[in-house]
Amino acid sequence: MYNLLKGKKGIIFGALDENSIAWKTAERVHEEGGTFVLTNAPIAMRMGQINQLAEKTGSEIIPADATSLDDLQQLVEKSVEILGGKLDFVLHSIGMSINVRKGKHYTDQNYDFTTKGWDVSAVSFHKVLQTLHKNDAMNEWGSIVALTYMAAQRTFPDYNDMADNKAYLESIARSFGYFYGKDKNVRVNTISQSPTPTTAGQGVKGFDGFIAYADMMSPLGNATAAECADYTLTLFSDLTRKVTMQNLYHDGGFSNTGVSNEVMEKFIK
Amino acid sequence: MYNLLKGKKGIIFGALDENSIAWKTAERVHEEGGTFVLTNAPIAMRMGQINQLAEKTGSEIIPADATSLDDLQQLVEKSVEILGGKLDFVLHSIGMSINVRKGKHYTDQNYDFTTKGWDVSAVSFHKVLQTLHKNDAMNEWGSIVALTYMAAQRTFPDYNDMADNKAYLESIARSFGYFYGKDKNVRVNTISQSPTPTTAGQGVKGFDGFIAYADMMSPLGNATAAECADYTLTLFSDLTRKVTMQNLYHDGGFSNTGVSNEVMEKFIK
Amino acid sequence: MYNLLKGKKGIIFGALDENSIAWKTAERVHEEGGTFVLTNAPIAMRMGQINQLAEKTGSEIIPADATSLDDLQQLVEKSVEILGGKLDFVLHSIGMSINVRKGKHYTDQNYDFTTKGWDVSAVSFHKVLQTLHKNDAMNEWGSIVALTYMAAQRTFPDYNDMADNKAYLESIARSFGYFYGKDKNVRVNTISQSPTPTTAGQGVKGFDGFIAYADMMSPLGNATAAECADYTLTLFSDLTRKVTMQNLYHDGGFSNTGVSNEVMEKFIK
Amino acid sequence: MYNLLKGKKGIIFGALDENSIAWKTAERVHEEGGTFVLTNAPIAMRMGQINQLAEKTGSEIIPADATSLDDLQQLVEKSVEILGGKLDFVLHSIGMSINVRKGKHYTDQNYDFTTKGWDVSAVSFHKVLQTLHKNDAMNEWGSIVALTYMAAQRTFPDYNDMADNKAYLESIARSFGYFYGKDKNVRVNTISQSPTPTTAGQGVKGFDGFIAYADMMSPLGNATAAECADYTLTLFSDLTRKVTMQNLYHDGGFSNTGVSNEVMEKFIK
Repeated sequence: MYNLLKGKKGIIFGALDENSIAWKTAERVHEEGGTFVLTNAPIAMRMGQINQLAEKTGSEIIPADATSLDDLQQLVEKSVEILGGKLDFVLHSIGMSINVRKGKHYTDQNYDFTTKGWDVSAVSFHKVLQTLHKNDAMNEWGSIVALTYMAAQRTFPDYNDMADNKAYLESIARSFGYFYGKDKNVRVNTISQSPTPTTAGQGVKGFDGFIAYADMMSPLGNATAAECADYTLTLFSDLTRKVTMQNLYHDGGFSNTGVSNEVMEKFIK
Repeated sequence: MYNLLKGKKGIIFGALDENSIAWKTAERVHEEGGTFVLTNAPIAMRMGQINQLAEKTGSEIIPADATSLDDLQQLVEKSVEILGGKLDFVLHSIGMSINVRKGKHYTDQNYDFTTKGWDVSAVSFHKVLQTLHKNDAMNEWGSIVALTYMAAQRTFPDYNDMADNKAYLESIARSFGYFYGKDKNVRVNTISQSPTPTTAGQGVKGFDGFIAYADMMSPLGNATAAECADYTLTLFSDLTRKVTMQNLYHDGGFSNTGVSNEVMEKFIK
Repeated sequence: MYNLLKGKKGIIFGALDENSIAWKTAERVHEEGGTFVLTNAPIAMRMGQINQLAEKTGSEIIPADATSLDDLQQLVEKSVEILGGKLDFVLHSIGMSINVRKGKHYTDQNYDFTTKGWDVSAVSFHKVLQTLHKNDAMNEWGSIVALTYMAAQRTFPDYNDMADNKAYLESIARSFGYFYGKDKNVRVNTISQSPTPTTAGQGVKGFDGFIAYADMMSPLGNATAAECADYTLTLFSDLTRKVTMQNLYHDGGFSNTGVSNEVMEKFIK
Repeated sequence: MYNLLKGKKGIIFGALDENSIAWKTAERVHEEGGTFVLTNAPIAMRMGQINQLAEKTGSEIIPADATSLDDLQQLVEKSVEILGGKLDFVLHSIGMSINVRKGKHYTDQNYDFTTKGWDVSAVSFHKVLQTLHKNDAMNEWGSIVALTYMAAQRTFPDYNDMADNKAYLESIARSFGYFYGKDKNVRVNTISQSPTPTTAGQGVKGFDGFIAYADMMSPLGNATAAECADYTLTLFSDLTRKVTMQNLYHDGGFSNTGVSNEVMEKFIK
């Protein structure tokens, strides 16, 4: 604990249960002196234990469907009111593919599912940014982070249309980051995190095998949810003010490892 | 003329008028011995001179809305019938942002416009691929190309939500390219072309100044539509069979130029 | 055969034996109507069968140590004389790590070996370019290609200091490509090829297992030396005049595949 | 001040005067509770005011030529002794092109200068890493950072052979990062910093114009040396333990900005 976020205010999207990266981030932000509003989709909140988190961190909860501009408007307005001022940080940790849930193969998509998943996983980030921007709700040098995955750059067969959604999400970070930087010195970045055994991640087919593979490929091993929370703190802090429009790999080195000796051994004997 | 595409069959989307990259590509494919069906959205066809191109190249035209699965199914079925066999190449040259057309700033999007532009500019490529794949309409070692722009990697302020659409499009090329490669040895790539004074491109604000800037930044100058057609031929040919899931810059070197001496001169005196 | 390179003249470095990519390229360039001088290091020529290739393609051989400016000067002068005019294409296919040969681990380098390997594998490309440029030996819109490997982007543990050499080589292509483009409209690119069972490649430890792994990861399988020759032809042709300063993956999709189902299966059971 | 580096020990290379990034980093590391040894080349030290920095931060100075394995061995041994234990962080901020200094154009290099510049600017980083590794001088989860510049990815005409040196340097970070990660959980990264008006940077031709251009292209403006110091702290801290083998842009968004409105205005009127 360093008091790294002392006096900083924000909104944290996507804390479902204690496996969530957003949950861990909320805990760490609290420890570092930040205050925040927690939010999640009404339906997700029924399944989660977000009340415990709110209690533990002294936070209020405002349910919001991140695809609804009305909900987001309310969320932003109320958050500024509750926290007593403009925001310094926002975490977007939202993603869901209906094609994956319904078992539709990438080459056999239902485009209504595709559209819904894109809206939830990618456009929601634009909607959050646009609502913050229109309400002038961020302080100068504020920091906005969204979580993403390397499937946006390279194909992982079971990741399905989430790959395309993450590519769109990362593009939003760059596109909006340009304007938010120019207008308000607010930075926008994405963290490309190791595959993480969150409750959401576990919906992906063959996820356990994939976690093991990624761990074996990463010189430092997979990054955990708790470690991702720590990394996010640095991006929320005043120590990274000139980092913007970046996609930052937090993955134990996976992204720049062509192959590891451990993986190769499976192909040698 | 090299007979580079002798005996090859395909579909070319997006030829509007003689400024179109798709138009130039159709002419060059014809010269190189390929045969093809031309297609465009019914509304685009009324504005264009596609009949002249069809006559010149001995091609048939099948109107199709590339966001309509029914239209695409018809298009693929009929094309295979007309051309007398499965396809070897497909060019996707489709893109349109309603936010741009309606003058909505990137930070003030109308999300209905966003969704429509995404469907036309990006999802249409998935729909084309899925329709081809389901109909098993491509020959082994066939080649599919979509046109894109570097705004998918770096922000150009006036490019608006087309940046995000292109990022999604390029991700589709990788994601679908994986499966189409595994299943049928079909390759899928995108060409990231210099800004090109097509009729469509001219809709973008400040486009002339941008063309001049890009030309001055590119060691070989901007790539023209005719040059893009030539480059596309190589990707349709049998000489590039192992190139897949790539985004290929065809831009006179712009993408890897940090600054040119000519541009710097404007900042020195 | 398309007469794709009819009337074009060039120099091909690095043909050792019929497994060499340079050897395959020479054969294909010859078939496509190009004429060229073959060159290799005097020591490499003693081990190879380059005379057969010269005979087959009607080419002359000029031995040259590509780290020697004198040898390169002679080579360029004589080549222009023999071929009866300036050059249109050059292939650089040279690479060697003494640390690898001597079994020195990457973390235990002998820096004399490092320097020698860097000079042979990377600086030689600059020396070739500088000699061509100083002698004004390239025709306008000529094309220069060097072969590289993806270890320049991601770590493959056994690739050792060749990774760093290839990163330097690729940087030369960009840096020199800028100036050669501006000055003479000459383009400079690198091809990042699948691991290829050439005689040189076989020196790398565990190479067979690695070839198998790469093949299993690549949706289209590994690209062969013959396919690389074909791809190189397109870059030498007039159809790719605005492609410059690029690193082009010719690898069956390996570079953009995060993992394949086949590889994952080894981690599931 | 957060006590972010309390109890951490390290070595800082390259502090010349108060414009140096390394100087600013030393000051900030000291404020955050870290202790360190300062080092620079004997010749650089004569020109600098490093003694003031040592006094201010309570540090000792050990002169070392970073291209000399003997000097590095001494430096590492003594540092561990002076600091009373293994190291947690190392900053490499060393670079110099003799071709630039002597006014040799990139296309007219003197290869003795090239080799010397490469040794100083790039290989020195490998030598530092290898010396640390052989002496087992880093604590688990230690962090090593080298400073680099985006010329490694895109050409800036006046950056000359430093571009190629930085590409090599960044490759070392990946290559060595793999092994140091596997062996000791030590991470190795590079920070790709905005052009910074250090005393060293000022040697580059047209540097002032370039600073102005970069500032105008960057949505948040150029990152300063002081801000780079702050960012480096985060990478030395325990909050970024799973970030490794990365090249991290600290540049106000320059790297992902295709063009800014301000720059475009120079091309419109």
